[in-house]
Amino acid sequence: MADQLDFYFDFSSPYGYLAAQEIDALAVRHSLTARWHPTLIGAAFKQTGSQPLLGVPMKGDYAQHDLGRTARRLGVPFQLPKAFPFMAVASARAFYWRAATDEADAKKLAKALYRTAFADGADISSAQSVAEIASATCGVSADDVLAALNDPQLKDLLRNEVNAALERGVFGSPFIFVGDEAFWGFDRLPDVEAWLEGGW
Amino acid sequence: MADQLDFYFDFSSPYGYLAAQEIDALAVRHSLTARWHPTLIGAAFKQTGSQPLLGVPMKGDYAQHDLGRTARRLGVPFQLPKAFPFMAVASARAFYWRAATDEADAKKLAKALYRTAFADGADISSAQSVAEIASATCGVSADDVLAALNDPQLKDLLRNEVNAALERGVFGSPFIFVGDEAFWGFDRLPDVEAWLEGGW
Repeated sequence: MADQLDFYFDFSSPYGYLAAQEIDALAVRHSLTARWHPTLIGAAFKQTGSQPLLGVPMKGDYAQHDLGRTARRLGVPFQLPKAFPFMAVASARAFYWRAATDEADAKKLAKALYRTAFADGADISSAQSVAEIASATCGVSADDVLAALNDPQLKDLLRNEVNAALERGVFGSPFIFVGDEAFWGFDRLPDVEAWLEGGW
Repeated sequence: MADQLDFYFDFSSPYGYLAAQEIDALAVRHSLTARWHPTLIGAAFKQTGSQPLLGVPMKGDYAQHDLGRTARRLGVPFQLPKAFPFMAVASARAFYWRAATDEADAKKLAKALYRTAFADGADISSAQSVAEIASATCGVSADDVLAALNDPQLKDLLRNEVNAALERGVFGSPFIFVGDEAFWGFDRLPDVEAWLEGGW
């Protein structure tokens, strides 16, 4: 067994936010590191024909209720941002910008971004708001972050990460791999745990 | 709290089959009766824009793997019928035919139908095969079952049950209600259990 598990998520995914509260602790319980891979799930949605969850008739109402209920169970603050779903490109770029030099700091940034969106209900779709959060989290000026977010190399890097996730079969958020074993959805974290305890 | 929980499912739903192995025991652990409500989920799929799961790119492959893996964890035999997905109208009608006189027997029939489809991988889409299973399970001649399945009143009854499920917000299979609290999906059975233990 490898020494890591892979955690794929979209910054605009509320179930990804919930999983982000749990995944590191789950990994640590099994002496693993969780590697975080923000992606843009819209690319997969084109293949699966999926629509943004909360806009789907019947299912959207259920999901909205379930999100609040599940967050209460976890004791995690939760609200939907006013603008939802939102574009997660700037947030994902910011993560990979920081991960290139400091992966632990990139995770901190990811958690701060998620908290801003789904605990505070504020905007993380604009480069400006992402830069301000990154500045506060990483101790870099917002202008430097903004410049970094516009770097064509960073844009390519995110594009490659999104394609790699797609090729690996990631069609939803959150999506977790233990080796080649795939688990989709926040509600599969207990299965991930059982798998790590020796499979079945 | 009422003395029952409501278990909605489609006979062509493999996750419904898995839930059917667990739901009665779960209910009994909480001194409840599980009321079974077969429905035809296609009506809801028209509203949600959902496609039959296993035919969806990416998601279908994952689901097929997940079904085998989950059945192994439960120690439940599992295979997909050769013809899949299949029409569950005859099976659903047979359930309500039997439930009108003997609900316990109707559950036995439902389990036999599910077993034929997803343990043996055999056909339960035709009225003839359903009648044979019902005959063996309920001690009624297959011809009598066939005649019952063609009764216009039974057809109306199923139509009403499908509409009632739709109005209640059932958009997937399995789908469980504890009072008005809705839970979608086999992987939410632990949540149903936690809810019954006092909510959160």
